Amino acid sequence: MIQPNLQIALYHNSLAEALEDIEQVGKIVDTIEVGTILCLQEGKKAIRCIRELFPDKQIVADTKCADAGRTVARNVADAGADVMTVICCASLATMEAAQTQVKQIQIELYGDWTFEQAEKWLKLGIEQAIYHQSRDSLLAGESWGEKDLEKVEQLVELGFKVSVTGGLSPEILPLFKDLSIYSFIVGRGITASKEPLLAAERFKTEIARIWG
Amino acid sequence: MIQPNLQIALYHNSLAEALEDIEQVGKIVDTIEVGTILCLQEGKKAIRCIRELFPDKQIVADTKCADAGRTVARNVADAGADVMTVICCASLATMEAAQTQVKQIQIELYGDWTFEQAEKWLKLGIEQAIYHQSRDSLLAGESWGEKDLEKVEQLVELGFKVSVTGGLSPEILPLFKDLSIYSFIVGRGITASKEPLLAAERFKTEIARIWG
Repeated sequence: MIQPNLQIALYHNSLAEALEDIEQVGKIVDTIEVGTILCLQEGKKAIRCIRELFPDKQIVADTKCADAGRTVARNVADAGADVMTVICCASLATMEAAQTQVKQIQIELYGDWTFEQAEKWLKLGIEQAIYHQSRDSLLAGESWGEKDLEKVEQLVELGFKVSVTGGLSPEILPLFKDLSIYSFIVGRGITASKEPLLAAERFKTEIARIWG
Repeated sequence: MIQPNLQIALYHNSLAEALEDIEQVGKIVDTIEVGTILCLQEGKKAIRCIRELFPDKQIVADTKCADAGRTVARNVADAGADVMTVICCASLATMEAAQTQVKQIQIELYGDWTFEQAEKWLKLGIEQAIYHQSRDSLLAGESWGEKDLEKVEQLVELGFKVSVTGGLSPEILPLFKDLSIYSFIVGRGITASKEPLLAAERFKTEIARIWG
């Protein structure tokens, strides 16, 4: 199996706070995500600034786009993003429009999506999906279970590069050991740590140990 | 029936362009929506600026929030929004969290939502829903039809204040004449007009003629 990427999600309320963390860990992660909260607080300048600081990293704009796919995708690509997220309940027309403007689209799986829909996304040429434990579900006490792992496996078997996110810690990674995960997306698991660099390194070490 | 509101959606790529339009029509519309594209391009300052300019208008932040409801809602409320949109495939936990931070939540209906879900939103105390023709669907040639009107009617009967949006023109409004619509949300129907003020007035006049 290919070694999964480590993607840091910058869920900060301000660019200044995000920069404090990313300046510490940016070099050792594979992908930097400008999170939805940061996009909504700071606008495109958050993407532009991260791109200037990290010209060689893959950058994801977590827009969770639901409509106006072409415009949103063009805007984030102009600002420097390689990848944009689209919410699973967006129309196929939105997904198709977004695809024309940015290198890659990732479908964010929230709510009652179906594998029938997932096959339609694949037919559009969309290769990536993100399987979540939503932050609000985590706060409500839910966590990763067999049901989640089965869905992830099914998506991988369908042909998706699947990223997973939500409440991840190095201790949780072995749960995914039999799966071909594309990226582990980690926010607070790194940034809420007292030593973000050390936290990111622990993820990298554990990923290398399991999938290396 | 109560007279529907006219809500202008500012879908601009920059605050400067949005201001050009809203300075013309802001006074005569009931509600001003800071559109998703504008939120993503300019960040919270777009909401803050519109709030400063129009202290007495209802302001909607069209975040189409899918997760981290509490934070996103708190942030847009801090910036001056009264209302925030949440995407229908967000979890109930996200909707509940968002509700604690902002005066009102509107559920954006995209994709395969169900009336069973809608009843759950009502139970959470969410009173508003937005029924769309998505911009990308409109670009793909779709328009308002009997199927849409039936769904809107069902939502109204369930107890929602229903706003409609997507490809609206004064000529289309009579289609909705038998329905209790909460708001007509209009973007390009006003802002793409050569005379935005005149276009907004034509909407107001037609709303007053039909529901006045």
